[in-house]
Amino acid sequence: MVQAKAWILTKHFDGFPKESNFQLKVEELPEPKDGEVLLEALFLSVDPYMRPFSRVRMKEGDVMIGTQVAKVIQSKNAEFPAGVHVVGRSGWRSHTISDGSGLIPIMPDWPRDVSLSLALGIIGMPGLTALYGIEEVLGLKAGETLLVNAAAGAVGSVVGQIAKIKGCKVVGSAGSDAKVAFLKELGFDEAFNYKTVASWEEALRKAAPEGYNCFFENVGGPFSSVALSQMKDFGRIAVCGSISTYNDTQPQTGPFPHMTMIFKQLKMEGFMQSRWEKKHPESLRRLMGWLKEGKLQNREHITKGFENMPAAFMGMLQGENTGKAIVAV
Amino acid sequence: MVQAKAWILTKHFDGFPKESNFQLKVEELPEPKDGEVLLEALFLSVDPYMRPFSRVRMKEGDVMIGTQVAKVIQSKNAEFPAGVHVVGRSGWRSHTISDGSGLIPIMPDWPRDVSLSLALGIIGMPGLTALYGIEEVLGLKAGETLLVNAAAGAVGSVVGQIAKIKGCKVVGSAGSDAKVAFLKELGFDEAFNYKTVASWEEALRKAAPEGYNCFFENVGGPFSSVALSQMKDFGRIAVCGSISTYNDTQPQTGPFPHMTMIFKQLKMEGFMQSRWEKKHPESLRRLMGWLKEGKLQNREHITKGFENMPAAFMGMLQGENTGKAIVAV
Repeated sequence: MVQAKAWILTKHFDGFPKESNFQLKVEELPEPKDGEVLLEALFLSVDPYMRPFSRVRMKEGDVMIGTQVAKVIQSKNAEFPAGVHVVGRSGWRSHTISDGSGLIPIMPDWPRDVSLSLALGIIGMPGLTALYGIEEVLGLKAGETLLVNAAAGAVGSVVGQIAKIKGCKVVGSAGSDAKVAFLKELGFDEAFNYKTVASWEEALRKAAPEGYNCFFENVGGPFSSVALSQMKDFGRIAVCGSISTYNDTQPQTGPFPHMTMIFKQLKMEGFMQSRWEKKHPESLRRLMGWLKEGKLQNREHITKGFENMPAAFMGMLQGENTGKAIVAV
Repeated sequence: MVQAKAWILTKHFDGFPKESNFQLKVEELPEPKDGEVLLEALFLSVDPYMRPFSRVRMKEGDVMIGTQVAKVIQSKNAEFPAGVHVVGRSGWRSHTISDGSGLIPIMPDWPRDVSLSLALGIIGMPGLTALYGIEEVLGLKAGETLLVNAAAGAVGSVVGQIAKIKGCKVVGSAGSDAKVAFLKELGFDEAFNYKTVASWEEALRKAAPEGYNCFFENVGGPFSSVALSQMKDFGRIAVCGSISTYNDTQPQTGPFPHMTMIFKQLKMEGFMQSRWEKKHPESLRRLMGWLKEGKLQNREHITKGFENMPAAFMGMLQGENTGKAIVAV
């Protein structure tokens, strides 16, 4: 018998999440039955998508959704023997009984000197999101200029680095001077603190007077309108996130984008990485290759303790993290 | 010597165009020089795009931009002998001296029983816009459901008919009961009067409870937000026009589209037909073929008299026309 902890969404978020939206539940898990495994979480992910998806994928009383790196600690499933590590969509749970469906084994040649937590970040969903956004949605080409916002976040920081690998000029927007310095370390050509610049128009124009071919959108809201106005003809926009609007109680409004989209013949596409799931194994290997070659740098913001998951989640939504926000059990 | 009349934009539009924005100028044209022709306008086009483009393509005092079907009445250019008909971008002019650049001869096998005015409509720019929006932007496939607004207009009415040729379900929104009846005549599966239905949400849902694969956007503004919410996953939106916002003095605002675009992985693209200019000759032949086979029906709203161009333009912006708005000299 194992005591499992789980974080419950007690009440749907209304505006910015509060401690009172969450409740820690403790329960005894039974022994795994034939075909089942018992998982123990090592690292859990907190991601922006959890805020909007809580509305559509969860009901009150459900365990918070999410992905984790876990170790199989008991197994009655030959596919996942005790001791192996997997990525699973178990939600915010310390221990989970699983029949194995949906579990993804950590790649067998995962280097010993690379933390398994990266399977939730640069060698996981956020890395894949960056890669597919650039290759499948934007079709980014060498010599083009790319803008990315929330650029110091889990996805944005990988976007900028992949765009540099592809021979592009990269401009990043982030929410603190420390993050801006981090972006410069990563090789971004230009970066600015959107909270302190006098004008987004000016900051964007100064960073790329030639305009932007591509825009990797993580933020939404008023920034998107300003960015749209500085796209070049036939510009492409990959709509990955909209973190500035996730906590709205009333939807924020802005000017309709149609006129700008027509005059400049812009293309804008919303996407989720799951669309290219068949490519995941090959894509993860490419990301790992770039990491090992030193072409991708990784940064994590690690919160210790399963009990701190709500705090880590809320901190991430407020931009406390530079790089990927992770909870280490 | 020929007396030419031309309509001048005396002052940039501020809000809805007024008579006082226009002035009729009369001038004597010289004889054409070597390489030049003298054109006489037969039909002139008034189109929604003239309103927004006046800001970016014209200065005060310029002749209004626009396309016309004209006859060469004097020629010192062997390529365009006297008597031939051309489509030219001469603007709102009764007579024009041209060196031939940019003139497009009416296709040599233009049927005698088809009015040359159609070269400004269904066998011209609006027809091409409809065709490219459907084939190049939306990639519309048989069995899909398409929504088009301003559906009884020059572009919308062709969009719906081409979508029917392609084996799709077509829903149209238009601004009067007579227009709705016209859409039914054209073979639209569903049509509604957006000015009188109690709720756009309900009207759209009732017309296509299954949701929309494709949306041909001519209107912009609040209608676009409602339509977005009823797109199916992986829906595509061709942004062709935004007539509901052209006369804004302050930009209208609406909810940012990002969240909907992400959840449904929608693609939205602004376009102008000029992008596919190389395909025009073949495309015009296809449109003419459909017309002659009876697969496309044409409707025009003809205003008589060059002196009525401003009135025809303003009437078109108010939706007085069913089908293509044309001025016959």
